[in-house]
Amino acid sequence: MNESRIQRVIGIDAGGTRTRARLAEAATGRTLGEGTGGPGNALSVPADALVRHLAEALRGALSGSPPPGGAGAVAAVVAGFAGGGPGGGGERAEGALAAALAEVGAGPARTEVRGDAEVAFAAGPGAPADGLVLIAGTGAAGARVADRRLVCAVDGDGWLLGDAGSGFWLGREALRAVLRALDGRGPRTALAAPVAELCGGLSKERVVGFAYAAHPVRLAGLSPLVVAAAGAGDAVAGRLLDRAADELAATVGALEPRPGEPLVVTGGLLAPGGPLLPRLADRVRASGLVPSSVPDGLAGAVSLARLPA
Amino acid sequence: MNESRIQRVIGIDAGGTRTRARLAEAATGRTLGEGTGGPGNALSVPADALVRHLAEALRGALSGSPPPGGAGAVAAVVAGFAGGGPGGGGERAEGALAAALAEVGAGPARTEVRGDAEVAFAAGPGAPADGLVLIAGTGAAGARVADRRLVCAVDGDGWLLGDAGSGFWLGREALRAVLRALDGRGPRTALAAPVAELCGGLSKERVVGFAYAAHPVRLAGLSPLVVAAAGAGDAVAGRLLDRAADELAATVGALEPRPGEPLVVTGGLLAPGGPLLPRLADRVRASGLVPSSVPDGLAGAVSLARLPA
Repeated sequence: MNESRIQRVIGIDAGGTRTRARLAEAATGRTLGEGTGGPGNALSVPADALVRHLAEALRGALSGSPPPGGAGAVAAVVAGFAGGGPGGGGERAEGALAAALAEVGAGPARTEVRGDAEVAFAAGPGAPADGLVLIAGTGAAGARVADRRLVCAVDGDGWLLGDAGSGFWLGREALRAVLRALDGRGPRTALAAPVAELCGGLSKERVVGFAYAAHPVRLAGLSPLVVAAAGAGDAVAGRLLDRAADELAATVGALEPRPGEPLVVTGGLLAPGGPLLPRLADRVRASGLVPSSVPDGLAGAVSLARLPA
Repeated sequence: MNESRIQRVIGIDAGGTRTRARLAEAATGRTLGEGTGGPGNALSVPADALVRHLAEALRGALSGSPPPGGAGAVAAVVAGFAGGGPGGGGERAEGALAAALAEVGAGPARTEVRGDAEVAFAAGPGAPADGLVLIAGTGAAGARVADRRLVCAVDGDGWLLGDAGSGFWLGREALRAVLRALDGRGPRTALAAPVAELCGGLSKERVVGFAYAAHPVRLAGLSPLVVAAAGAGDAVAGRLLDRAADELAATVGALEPRPGEPLVVTGGLLAPGGPLLPRLADRVRASGLVPSSVPDGLAGAVSLARLPA
């Protein structure tokens, strides 16, 4: 068999933290190369940086296995973008993807931009076509997918109005719990020590000053403190994890789950080994759901790229 | 009696929306003149604007009754500033007040800058010296006052971390309630119609786009929508007012109230006729408290200015 006849596809998962690309054999799905670039949120990353981060990831994926006949021998590219869903930055993402593909010299027959929920769902076991997906990382959103397309979204409303149960939500609630303990509205918590270290002191002024000094979303970086405190037995931190899982389960519940249908979960809090995974599994069991945890949507993007156009 | 021998004092209430000044007779408290200027938050209003707004209010107060012997015949000025409390903008407020007094040609023997909680409390019936004060307007904060000084503050943590039960809180919760109704996590609400009008349409994209388009604090402007919807019988809006009052009562509770002690309340939500006043009164009755509602801290600033130095 002539090596140059092997059809190749590329899957891209462009998330808020990084962009990953994978080159795979179309027929078997076998991975041929992988690459990583900077953040890929289609709404929040500036256009030129978005092109650069995509190109970085693409170069990495293509470098390990230079396709015979040039990069142009890639048959299809499917890219899932955070912020690329309905009402989001789909057009920006399409423009950036086209520019990045041109930059690396790849002109695939087919390119497709998806929201992150669709590629995350397709990353589930057996690359399912219909079911539910829940992402909980910096933000939090759920969706129903039918025939591999998002048909209904719940939450994903961002840090100011929603993302209930997300990393941002946990970080903000950690600061609130410390403030409430300081002024007597809430119980004492072991979160006080790491928060004091972060804020340069344990006082309302220090905590408030820290919180308003930069973009609110960076409070997502405090969620590991909550996980650590809960693990060490702090009741307040444990209740925060419980409440976060309650919120995420409510997001799933609003999607009107059918017993036994697929529920794919991902994001820092729900990826394999993620701190909210056991709590979420407990809460959705009554609805007849068993979460399938995946590390990200990369495998899903590849699966979608391998489908016939 | 020589008119020029009458001692005069000035009280100033510098709030987030406007600055008010009152000239009064020191011996009797009789009002001799009043003036109004722009916003006076010591933390958020730029320094030059702060001086200008204070001078506007001072000119108004002094114009009605030009003091014999010149403006210099004012014995004392006490000014309460939003954002002028402990850890706040007290020094900025002092600088601005001195500049504004120089601008209007008044060089009083004594000037004093206070936080808004202290002047609001002193505005209570009988100008009390010890007790509790609760302010709920754009933000929300409670304090214990002893010997006319703040000794303990609860909440006032700002829109991102606190201000539970404030106008901002109500406005944000109104948008969240509409979003939750839209995606099935919450019940339908009559808030949908006015929110749709404000956001240019009733969809998650419109509501989210509206919320993130400008500074979060402007969402306080939505609180009248909640009051109106609750008044028209909407259960979701009514529950939001109940929850806001619960939060404010919790703030009072954290101050460890003693039965029968004064509780002075003010701010747009708790001023006379304010929408949360009956609900708050219901909730603090069990602690033996009866809220005294005052329109603002102006009378309190005058009372403090009339005290012997």
